[in-house]
Amino acid sequence: MLFVKEAVTASAPAKVILFGEHFVVYGEPAVVLAIDKRVYAFVKARKDKQIHVNSKDLGISGFFKEEIFQPERGGKSARIKLEPIKNAIQQVLDRAERKFGVDAEVHSSVPVSAGLGSSAAVAASTVAAVAHLLAVKLTLDEIFHVALEAERQIHGTPSGIDPAISTYGGMLLFQKEKGFTPLNVQADLPLVVGNTGVEHSTGDLVASVCQKRDRYPSIIDPILKVGGKIAVEAVEALKRADLPTVGELMNLNHTLLSALGVSHESLDRLVFAARKSGAYGAKLTGGGGGGCMVALTKTDKREKVINAIEQAGGSAFIARKTDEGVRIEP
Amino acid sequence: MLFVKEAVTASAPAKVILFGEHFVVYGEPAVVLAIDKRVYAFVKARKDKQIHVNSKDLGISGFFKEEIFQPERGGKSARIKLEPIKNAIQQVLDRAERKFGVDAEVHSSVPVSAGLGSSAAVAASTVAAVAHLLAVKLTLDEIFHVALEAERQIHGTPSGIDPAISTYGGMLLFQKEKGFTPLNVQADLPLVVGNTGVEHSTGDLVASVCQKRDRYPSIIDPILKVGGKIAVEAVEALKRADLPTVGELMNLNHTLLSALGVSHESLDRLVFAARKSGAYGAKLTGGGGGGCMVALTKTDKREKVINAIEQAGGSAFIARKTDEGVRIEP
Repeated sequence: MLFVKEAVTASAPAKVILFGEHFVVYGEPAVVLAIDKRVYAFVKARKDKQIHVNSKDLGISGFFKEEIFQPERGGKSARIKLEPIKNAIQQVLDRAERKFGVDAEVHSSVPVSAGLGSSAAVAASTVAAVAHLLAVKLTLDEIFHVALEAERQIHGTPSGIDPAISTYGGMLLFQKEKGFTPLNVQADLPLVVGNTGVEHSTGDLVASVCQKRDRYPSIIDPILKVGGKIAVEAVEALKRADLPTVGELMNLNHTLLSALGVSHESLDRLVFAARKSGAYGAKLTGGGGGGCMVALTKTDKREKVINAIEQAGGSAFIARKTDEGVRIEP
Repeated sequence: MLFVKEAVTASAPAKVILFGEHFVVYGEPAVVLAIDKRVYAFVKARKDKQIHVNSKDLGISGFFKEEIFQPERGGKSARIKLEPIKNAIQQVLDRAERKFGVDAEVHSSVPVSAGLGSSAAVAASTVAAVAHLLAVKLTLDEIFHVALEAERQIHGTPSGIDPAISTYGGMLLFQKEKGFTPLNVQADLPLVVGNTGVEHSTGDLVASVCQKRDRYPSIIDPILKVGGKIAVEAVEALKRADLPTVGELMNLNHTLLSALGVSHESLDRLVFAARKSGAYGAKLTGGGGGGCMVALTKTDKREKVINAIEQAGGSAFIARKTDEGVRIEP
């Protein structure tokens, strides 16, 4: 048998940023957690050294043969979105003793391009699956670095939050220069994620905050610092399982994100709906300008919050913190 | 003839706070302007020394004979709202050479209890009307002080912004301890005021901000300081007639008011509607929690903004800065 396995499925969790998106770009701390919604990478070895990538969610697929891309579905522009996955696979292939090709099919159980870290989870799960397939031993740290490299090809200079949480799972405090600190939070965190369905570009939003800061430094700089203080207070509240305070701090965080100009009417509508239906707190999560919001609520109020979000025009699902990072599926 | 005049009508302007409501309680500057919507006090002398007060807007009226109140419309509870007007009248009567009674009828062209300063305008216009009726010479400063005293009986410890702007008109910068500074702003300021119709209690909202500050001083204190910086930047932008910047600062101010917890879904809806229909910026004005919002727009877009606010469930009217403070009507 040429391969350790005929086929391997690996998965990695999506994430929500509970505190500090955007502020993190300016050196403030952010709190991120892995949620029990996963991205799956199904891989098979090929004898022809080609790499075939199929994104079921994006409805695009194609073959890479060295530097040549042959689209299958989605036309030539599919290359931009498939190439990071191919590159992640290639990095593992480069470490394998024998040279093969790979068939990779990826599927996300969360909305893609919605601020939930699906692209990093795709990268982490694909890397893990291919490594397992070809008996390449990779540590979690190595998986993280390969996934981060794939993210760089999509987002330019990502903070690294997404590939880290997809790889390690759990809850992390991240701060530029200080890096990642695992947060040992015992509290159950019943979350509801609401999707506005409004498309946004995280890169454009990051740039708009930067412009606003250039324009009003005496106003924006202290707001950025306050964002950091909210994350610090939130960590303490999370550790003592004080969910009402965590919720209140999420509300505060949301207003400061609005001050940075990254909220959106569609987000505010869902946030208000969640709060009114009994959530402890709610805020946008991720880049903003559309995309998703997250609400913290009581376990027995999750359905009510979901209904409220749906009535307000969004789609919603229950999410919980998971300690399971990237893993090989049986 | 016993009286200088048979009957006198005086008026005083309503106001909008453009920047700094709530922040002003904590020593930060606020920018307030008188608008071309006025409150009218129509007074006649009575020979019987009784004071009769009729609030057409509230639909309440009654007689005061020394300390006895005889309700006419609105029952005994009408006393609470009519007594400040009676007290303002009494202060003028105390300065008159001969003792008479007064019939006072007040009417506001702006919604009452909506954060537009109608009660202070009632006080200022009533004081001016009664003084003119009885040939009591009062300076503007004296009218201000009598109106402020009447406000104290309604709001406890008002900042004094409302009676000041109703008395002097124009635009004022107010800061605790520093007091009032007239702002010489030449720019035309085409404003649209939107009323949510949602009732609120300014006193409760002020108290809730105080509680939030006690709970999260490291977060709220810097937000309060930023609110002050926004007002300072806004004064500069107003002086150079840079309306796009004024609008952007209004938007920022609104998000920080949201952070203090004094916005409301109904306000946010109107604020978003105004921004989307082409306003330079929009924010709640006054106490928040309902009440009114104000949008700055181009003159030729005012109707569009009004339509958008009305479609979003509010009622709206055009307002412009006025330099006319309290005055005797011909």
